[in-house]
Amino acid sequence: MTAVSDQERQRRQRLATRLADADQPAALITRPVNVRYLTGLVSSNAAVLVYADGSAVLATDFRYRAAAPDDIDLVDARNVAVALVARAGTDGVRRLGFEEHEVTVEGHDELMQAAESAKLELARLHRAVEAIRLVKDDAELDSLRHACAVADEALAGLLPTVRPGRTEREIARDLDERIRDLGAEGPSFESIIAAGPHSAIPHHRPSDRPVEKGDLLKLDFGALVDGYCSDMTRTVCVGTPADWQREIHAIVLAAQAAGRAAAVPGAVANDVDAAARSVVSDAGYAEEFPHGLGHGVGLEIHEAPALRAGATDRLDVDIPVTVEPGIYLPGRGGVRIEDTVVVRAADGPEVLTKTSRDLLVL
Amino acid sequence: MTAVSDQERQRRQRLATRLADADQPAALITRPVNVRYLTGLVSSNAAVLVYADGSAVLATDFRYRAAAPDDIDLVDARNVAVALVARAGTDGVRRLGFEEHEVTVEGHDELMQAAESAKLELARLHRAVEAIRLVKDDAELDSLRHACAVADEALAGLLPTVRPGRTEREIARDLDERIRDLGAEGPSFESIIAAGPHSAIPHHRPSDRPVEKGDLLKLDFGALVDGYCSDMTRTVCVGTPADWQREIHAIVLAAQAAGRAAAVPGAVANDVDAAARSVVSDAGYAEEFPHGLGHGVGLEIHEAPALRAGATDRLDVDIPVTVEPGIYLPGRGGVRIEDTVVVRAADGPEVLTKTSRDLLVL
Repeated sequence: MTAVSDQERQRRQRLATRLADADQPAALITRPVNVRYLTGLVSSNAAVLVYADGSAVLATDFRYRAAAPDDIDLVDARNVAVALVARAGTDGVRRLGFEEHEVTVEGHDELMQAAESAKLELARLHRAVEAIRLVKDDAELDSLRHACAVADEALAGLLPTVRPGRTEREIARDLDERIRDLGAEGPSFESIIAAGPHSAIPHHRPSDRPVEKGDLLKLDFGALVDGYCSDMTRTVCVGTPADWQREIHAIVLAAQAAGRAAAVPGAVANDVDAAARSVVSDAGYAEEFPHGLGHGVGLEIHEAPALRAGATDRLDVDIPVTVEPGIYLPGRGGVRIEDTVVVRAADGPEVLTKTSRDLLVL
Repeated sequence: MTAVSDQERQRRQRLATRLADADQPAALITRPVNVRYLTGLVSSNAAVLVYADGSAVLATDFRYRAAAPDDIDLVDARNVAVALVARAGTDGVRRLGFEEHEVTVEGHDELMQAAESAKLELARLHRAVEAIRLVKDDAELDSLRHACAVADEALAGLLPTVRPGRTEREIARDLDERIRDLGAEGPSFESIIAAGPHSAIPHHRPSDRPVEKGDLLKLDFGALVDGYCSDMTRTVCVGTPADWQREIHAIVLAAQAAGRAAAVPGAVANDVDAAARSVVSDAGYAEEFPHGLGHGVGLEIHEAPALRAGATDRLDVDIPVTVEPGIYLPGRGGVRIEDTVVVRAADGPEVLTKTSRDLLVL
C-alpha cells in the first residue's frame, strides 16, 4: 500500500502532465476539495500552485499550518490565492491557469490585480483537476468500499428497529449514529428518510411524521470515510405491500439492474441512463421518473460524470457512479433503489453497496 | 410573534428599499444562504429575483418544489439563475444586480449570455443581502438564543463526564450527541476539542489523544437551531492548574471582559478588537494571540462584521458577534474564552452563552 503522501504526489504529477500537454506552465488550484485531493490538506483557506514539472507550493494561514504536508513548499498567507499569484510571478511563470468554476467575479478582480503586479496572464483551467479525479486511485477506491460497507452495516442494524410510530426524524438520527458508531466521520449528506406519501418526494427532509402501516419507507443515505462519500437507497414496505407498491418496486428493480449492466467501460453516460429509463418508460411511468439515473461520487457526493439524458461523458475503468432510478406517485408514495458501483469490465461493475434489493417487508 | 413568511417578506422589503435607494430595478440572488434568508427555502439549487417594488420570483427544480413558500411566484428550472435572468427581461428589467462574490467566472459567462438574450445589463450588488443580514430581526435573535442555550446545556452535561483517558474524538462525539439530544439540528461546525499541547493549536481537529492529568482542555463548539449557529469556547484544566495555566487563563478572561465591554452600538470593529488585544499585549503575550477577536454569527458561523485590527465596520443594536481572545503557547497549551453576544446598549451587550468563564478544574 502506497503511503498517502505518495498518492498525492502522484496526483500532482498527473495534473502536471496534463499541464505540460496543454503547454500550461502552472495552475493555481483554489477549490477546497481539489486542494485536499492534491495535498491531503483539509482547510477552508488554502490554495496550491502546481507547476508543469510536478513541483508545488501550498499556501494557508496559521490555523492550518500544523496540518500541512511536510513535502510541499509552504507559504503563510491569509489571502492564499493572491499570495500564490505573486509567487508564480517570482518563479518566472508568465501564464497561470485558474479555476474559473470556483473563482468568483469578485475574486477574479483580485487575481487580475495580483497578476498585473506579477506580470503574468491568467488562463482558464477547464476543470483540469476534476478531469483527473474522475478515475479513482487505489486509496480512493479503498475508502469508498469502506464507506459503502459502513452504510450497509448501519442499515442492517437499523431495519429491525423500524416500526410504526417511529418518526422519520428519529429514524434518521438513529441511522446517523449507527454510521458514526461504525467509525465513519458521519453521514455523507443529510439522510433522506421518507415515509408514506413523503416517499414520493425525491429529496425529502426528515419530518416528525411517524411511520404507519402500509407505508413505503425510502431511505437514501451514505457514510463519509476518509472524506469519501458512499450513497445508497433502499425502499421497504411497512406491513403487507399493496399491489401498486409491489408493481413499482419490481419495475424500479428491473430498471436498476439494466442501468447497472450498462455501466461498462466505454459506455456513454446518456446510454446508461437510457438503459434504465426505457424499462421505466415501457412500463408506463416515464413521467414519474423525473431525475437522472445517477452521478459520480468520491470526495463530493455529486461529482462527474452525470448519468442523464444528453450527457456525452464516457465511462472508464475505476470510475464510481451511483445507479438510482425511481418512480414517484404524488400523494401515494415512491420507490428508489440506488447502489454505488465502480465501472470495472464489460460483464458489469463492481457493486460496493451490498444490501439486498428485494422488497423488504417490515 | 410574526409568522415566518411575514419575516421573510419583510426581509425582501428591506432589500427592495435598498434597491430602490440605489436606483436598481431588481436583484438576482443566487447565494444559497441569502436565498434561504429571503424566502425560507433551504436548497442547493434555488435563486430569487427581488424587484425594487418588493415583489419576488423564486426559481428551483422539482426536488425542492414541495418545500417552496406558497406566497412567491415560482419558476421551475434546472439552471435557476439563467431562468431568472430571462424572467427579469420579460418583466422589463434593463439592469439586473447580481452577487459578484458568489457568481463564478464560469457562471458569469452564462449570465452574460442570458442577459444579452434578455436585453439587459448586469450590475454588481456589493453584498446587499449581507448588509441587511447584519442586524438580526426578532425571529433570528430567538433562534440564536435557543442555539446558545442548547450549547450551554450540552456543555453542562458533558463536563462531569470528562476524565483522563477519554480521547478528544470521544468527547467531541459525546458533545455532538448531547447537542442533538437537546433538539438542535446538530453542531454548528466541527467541534474543536483540544487537549494538552493540542490546545495551543487554534483550529485543532479532534484526534485519538486521550485527556491527561495536567492538561488544558479547550472546547470550541456550537449548536445549529433553525439554521442559526451558536459559537462558544471554554478552556478547563484537568487536575490542579499549574501557575502558567492560571496566569494565561486570567489574562484571557480579563481580555474577554474588555472585549465584551467594548461591543457597544457605534463602536468600530478595530477598537473592539484593540480593547481586548491591549490586555493580552500588556501582559506580554501579543505574539501568542494571532487571530482576530471575533466575528458576526447567524445563518453562517462566520459572517460580517469581522472584529479585527484595521476593520472599519461599526457595530449596531441587534448585531450578534463572538468575543474570543486566546493565548497559545506552542508545545504546552492554550486558552481561549468565547461568548456569542448581541450588541445592545452602551452598558454592554446581551450575552447569549451563559456558562461560567471561571477556570473550571475537573
